[in-house]
Amino acid sequence: MRTLFYKNKPSIIMTSTVAGPKESEGSLGKFYDVKLSDDKYGEKSFEKAESKMLYTAIDNCINKSKKDISKIDSIISGDLLDQITSSTFAVRNFNTGFLGVYNACASFCESLSIGATMIDGGYMQNVICATSSHFSSAERQYRFPLELGSTRPPLAQWTVTGAGACMLSNSKSNPKIVCSTVGKIVDFGVTDANDMGAAMAPAGAETISTHFKETGLKPNDYDLIVSGDLGTFGSRILKDLLYEKGFDIEKQHVDCGELIYNISESEYQGGSGAGCSSLVFCSYLFDKLKKKELKRILLVATGALLSSTSSMQGESIPGIAHAVSVEC
Amino acid sequence: MRTLFYKNKPSIIMTSTVAGPKESEGSLGKFYDVKLSDDKYGEKSFEKAESKMLYTAIDNCINKSKKDISKIDSIISGDLLDQITSSTFAVRNFNTGFLGVYNACASFCESLSIGATMIDGGYMQNVICATSSHFSSAERQYRFPLELGSTRPPLAQWTVTGAGACMLSNSKSNPKIVCSTVGKIVDFGVTDANDMGAAMAPAGAETISTHFKETGLKPNDYDLIVSGDLGTFGSRILKDLLYEKGFDIEKQHVDCGELIYNISESEYQGGSGAGCSSLVFCSYLFDKLKKKELKRILLVATGALLSSTSSMQGESIPGIAHAVSVEC
Repeated sequence: MRTLFYKNKPSIIMTSTVAGPKESEGSLGKFYDVKLSDDKYGEKSFEKAESKMLYTAIDNCINKSKKDISKIDSIISGDLLDQITSSTFAVRNFNTGFLGVYNACASFCESLSIGATMIDGGYMQNVICATSSHFSSAERQYRFPLELGSTRPPLAQWTVTGAGACMLSNSKSNPKIVCSTVGKIVDFGVTDANDMGAAMAPAGAETISTHFKETGLKPNDYDLIVSGDLGTFGSRILKDLLYEKGFDIEKQHVDCGELIYNISESEYQGGSGAGCSSLVFCSYLFDKLKKKELKRILLVATGALLSSTSSMQGESIPGIAHAVSVEC
Repeated sequence: MRTLFYKNKPSIIMTSTVAGPKESEGSLGKFYDVKLSDDKYGEKSFEKAESKMLYTAIDNCINKSKKDISKIDSIISGDLLDQITSSTFAVRNFNTGFLGVYNACASFCESLSIGATMIDGGYMQNVICATSSHFSSAERQYRFPLELGSTRPPLAQWTVTGAGACMLSNSKSNPKIVCSTVGKIVDFGVTDANDMGAAMAPAGAETISTHFKETGLKPNDYDLIVSGDLGTFGSRILKDLLYEKGFDIEKQHVDCGELIYNISESEYQGGSGAGCSSLVFCSYLFDKLKKKELKRILLVATGALLSSTSSMQGESIPGIAHAVSVEC
C-alpha cells in the first residue's frame, strides 16, 4: 500500500507565502502575503534571494501562528537547487530540527506526507512544511544563464519565483490532511528538458489512479484535483492518461502552473517549480478551504527527477508525484 | 522534542552492501556483500556507476529478504549528487513508492528515522532505507575533476565509493530501532570545503547531547557511539565539544570514516560520503548486532550542507547530524 491513512487527521493551522514580481501580477496575486518588487530581494545572487524568500515564508508562518520556535519540532523542506541549499540556508536560522527532502517539484507534497505522518503518529506536535523555487536560479542551473538570451521553446514552462510554508499541528481545526499517497517513479522516456509536463504527467496519472484504487474514492468525491505544475500540455496528457485508466477528472482538474499566471506568450505552458504548488496551496487553496468554499481537494505535486548531469549523459527524465488529500 | 520514540521498535530485518575496490581492501572488507574490482562497475560514467551500486544494494536486499517487491511499501533514499540522481535512477527500476531525502552525509540516518516512523506508526509494513556515494563523482562535483591531479590538503577526507541498503519491517526480530533524534543545522562558520570534519562535528555534538538530554540516557548506556564520517580530526573535535557539554564519549566513540580504510597517507582523515555510514552500518555493525556482540549502539550520521555554488558565493558550511538508536 502506498496510501497513508491518518486516523487523527493532522490540521494545517497556518500558511505563509512570498511571491516574485511576475507571480504577484498573476491571477492569484491578491492571495499572497509578501509580494516582491525586486526578484533579487536585496541579495547579491538569485540563489541567496530564493533562500531568503523561503526563510521569510517560514518565519512569517511561525510568527502568524504565535507559537514559540521551541514548540516547532521540525522543519521539512526542499527545493530545486543543487544540495537543496535554499532550504538549508533558510532553515539554518531556526533553532529546530530539519529534515531535507528532494523529489523535485513534488517535494511540497512529499514534505506534507512525511509531516502529516509525524503529527498523526504523535511523534511531533508542530511541523513546518515548505518549498521554494526561483526562475533565475533554476534557469541557470538546469538550462542556460539568462544573460545568454536563449529563445524559449513552445513547450517550456516558467519556473515560479515563490515560496510557501505551512504549519501542521495536532490541534483539531480545519483544514485537515486525511491521507496521502506516496508516488512511484514513472519514466516514459521523455528526454526534452524543456518539456517537463510530458515527463511528469504519467507519474501524476499513476499516483492519482493508485490513490483512487487504494482509498475507494472517485473523482466526484473531490471538489478539486489539483496537479502541481504540469502546465497546459502536461495537464492534457494527465487527463487523457487517467481517462484511459477509467477515471474522468475533466471536471475536477486544475493545475497550479496554469492558475498562477495570466498566461501570455512568455510563460507558454504556465508555471513550474517546487515553489509552484506550495505558493498556490498556501495562499489561494488554503483560503478557499478555510472559508469552506472548497470542502475536499486532492493536491498532487509532480516532479521531474533530472539533473543537468543526467541530461548531459543522455538519460531520460523520470517523473514522480505525491498526492495529499485535504478536507475541511 | 526532537527525539522520536518508537513504541513498536521497528526491526532491521535485512541489509546489503556494495563496496568499491579501495573500500574492499580496507579493514572491513570481509563484511561487504559485493566487492567491485572496477569502480566504474561497467558503466560509462562514475555517476551511472554510483547509481548502479545503489540499485544493486537495494535489489540484493530485497532478494535476500525473500519478499516480493509488492510487499515493499517504499524506498527512502538519498545521495550526494545534484538532484540525488543516484537514488532516482536506481529506484526507477523498482515498482514501489519513493521518498527522496537529502541531508548530505547524514541522509542515511534521516532515511532510517523517517522509515522507522512509517513502520512504527503502522503506515507501512516494509521499507528500504539506502544511501550511496562515489569518490570520483563527488570529487568532480564538489572539488576538482580527477584529471586535474590536484594535491589533496592534509585535512581532506576520502569520499567512500559504496552503497548500503537495509530493510525495516514490523516483524519482531533483532536488531531494532528504539528511537531517533532529528538533527538541527549548526554552523560554526567553517568555509574550507576540504575540512568537512570540522564543519560537521559541532552538529554531531549538538545532536548527541540533545539525544542524551531528551532520552535520559548516558554515554555508558551504549556499547558504541558511531559517528558517520567525521574522520580523525573531526572525531577529535566531536569528543572535545561533548566533553565541554558534560558528556565523555571517549570510550564508546568510533567513526565510520576512521573504520573504513587502513588509513594511509592518501586518505588522510579517513572516509566520508553519504555511503560511508550506510556501508559500515549495513555490513560490520549489523553483523555485530545480529550476533549480539554489540547490544546497543547510537549511529550518528553527520552531513555538510554545502553546494559548489554556495561555496563559490562565499557561504560557510552548515552541518547537520541525525542519530538513530539501535539495540538487539
